Amino acid sequence: MDIRPVFRDGLKLFMLDQRLLPHREVFLEYHDAAGVAGGISDMVVRGAPAIGIAAAYGIALEAFKAPDSELFQDIGRAAAILMASRPTAVNLAWAVNRMVRTAGEAGQMRPQAIRARLLAEADAILAEDIEMNRRIGSFGAALLPDRCRVMTHCNAGALATGGFGTALGVIRAARNAGKDISVISCETRPYLQGARLTCWELVRDGFDVTLITDNSAAWQMASGNVDCVIVGADRIAANGDTANKIGTLSHAIAAGRYGIPFYVAAPSSTLDASLPDGSGIPIEQRDPSEVVSFGGVRVAAEGVSVANPSFDVTPAGLISAIITDRGVFKPGPDGYRF
Amino acid sequence: MDIRPVFRDGLKLFMLDQRLLPHREVFLEYHDAAGVAGGISDMVVRGAPAIGIAAAYGIALEAFKAPDSELFQDIGRAAAILMASRPTAVNLAWAVNRMVRTAGEAGQMRPQAIRARLLAEADAILAEDIEMNRRIGSFGAALLPDRCRVMTHCNAGALATGGFGTALGVIRAARNAGKDISVISCETRPYLQGARLTCWELVRDGFDVTLITDNSAAWQMASGNVDCVIVGADRIAANGDTANKIGTLSHAIAAGRYGIPFYVAAPSSTLDASLPDGSGIPIEQRDPSEVVSFGGVRVAAEGVSVANPSFDVTPAGLISAIITDRGVFKPGPDGYRF
Repeated sequence: MDIRPVFRDGLKLFMLDQRLLPHREVFLEYHDAAGVAGGISDMVVRGAPAIGIAAAYGIALEAFKAPDSELFQDIGRAAAILMASRPTAVNLAWAVNRMVRTAGEAGQMRPQAIRARLLAEADAILAEDIEMNRRIGSFGAALLPDRCRVMTHCNAGALATGGFGTALGVIRAARNAGKDISVISCETRPYLQGARLTCWELVRDGFDVTLITDNSAAWQMASGNVDCVIVGADRIAANGDTANKIGTLSHAIAAGRYGIPFYVAAPSSTLDASLPDGSGIPIEQRDPSEVVSFGGVRVAAEGVSVANPSFDVTPAGLISAIITDRGVFKPGPDGYRF
Repeated sequence: MDIRPVFRDGLKLFMLDQRLLPHREVFLEYHDAAGVAGGISDMVVRGAPAIGIAAAYGIALEAFKAPDSELFQDIGRAAAILMASRPTAVNLAWAVNRMVRTAGEAGQMRPQAIRARLLAEADAILAEDIEMNRRIGSFGAALLPDRCRVMTHCNAGALATGGFGTALGVIRAARNAGKDISVISCETRPYLQGARLTCWELVRDGFDVTLITDNSAAWQMASGNVDCVIVGADRIAANGDTANKIGTLSHAIAAGRYGIPFYVAAPSSTLDASLPDGSGIPIEQRDPSEVVSFGGVRVAAEGVSVANPSFDVTPAGLISAIITDRGVFKPGPDGYRF
């Protein structure tokens, strides 16, 4: 059965609690923007496209709770709360802005019609995301050889999106097209999205998956075990510089050294044309406890400082192609042109 | 007080159980070769020089247990058991061979004199190791600028040696020479020697230490936060190719990209002149449980395969200098010449 990490039932939003995977599949229920924002910042849901979808629903649900007289005020407040829930992924801002614009365009309608319009828009964002992932998958699958050992990092799968996935969507589509695909999943410290989520998704789908520590990725490449690397993205600047989960840069540098194609797969909502390059992308710094502790048990010596950036920026020059729902972009003589 | 991970008291060998650090400081007691070999393979003690020292004591202790008539036979058996306890570090074979040679050279002595000779030889190996580390430190310190942010990986410290350390010996010596040194310690998955051991050692010594995930090392380098990288080594081939803890290769590639000096610090017992290059270095594959579980709790999805190589090989071309007790080697036009 398809994995749907975020879905709506009436005026309830359900999100699969990804913090409990792979051990338990628990869906949490949300009714308003503050709840959804908390779910995003607490990582109940993660992955740039998925948090955009969740935020869109957060605004729609809030609209149903707001009194008629405060409808626009409450939508504005919800937008602000959701926008601040995590800083790096641009899809979040993209989805929130789209919902606010929708509200504005419906401004002359009756309040209940505006609410219905917002709910329909959030549904559309979800449906479009899945559709975009299928297109990304189809474009990306064509890039892979008939037999391909793909390395991926973090989780750019069904769990990170409305469903199907971006990087994992390419992998799924390639197999659906009859290709022989095996996967190396980097565990993705500190939050272990690779070990916990990507492995769960791919084992469930019957893929041959090998889990490795992030720090052994370069050695796997040097040993000739990797045919290409495919990752997702949280924000892509106008020149192709790409923010993605911490560790992506390291893999891209190693892939460059060994002449291994390095692909980014993302919906076009991940493109941030307002930033000329990656230097302006805000990098979320997360809590030191993610690094010094494990399952609540301290592992590191007391007294250390911790740096825990959640993302890094891979320069466009290390990216072989960017696979989007609008097609595959490869750098020309002047770099990427979207 | 100085850290001594392996020391002898009479005919008892004590090893600090590094599996329990940083939480508890427990010394385990050993009386024979099989016990010491178990301590090495179970990672009570780890680090190439330290396991060489432990193995030397394992042979000496075994000699005291052996009946006169079976002395050489038992020494031979002890050597075989110890040699097989871990495959990658050449210091282990180096120390075992030195002990066997010592026994052979003392072959005409009375059994009790041979035993005493072996014990003295193991003591000498320990004392020489500390002395070599101090020389490595002194040579290495001269390479560092007066203000230096050093990145290191795994633990090449007092805990990995007889005391003082190789990579961390350089760091200690540089501070002793009045330099302003801060350290970024990579956590070193899966066994977390960086988080558990290096941070413990350095915090104890009052260093400013920042712990990071291995996968963020490249991003720290790209962000201009690293002035040099210093790591230890488990085996160095005749051309300078260096086996060290998994993840070292990745850091070396990134350092190369960003023009950051990448140094290997190791005693000359780590040089393996019998291997022309790194392709012949055996790479230990450790148990999948180190990757899929944490503190006995499963973290990865069921059904995945795991690749868990404990070491990788960094090509000589990525190493700026190899710092040994015999001086600093830099590659010439024909590469490294030791």
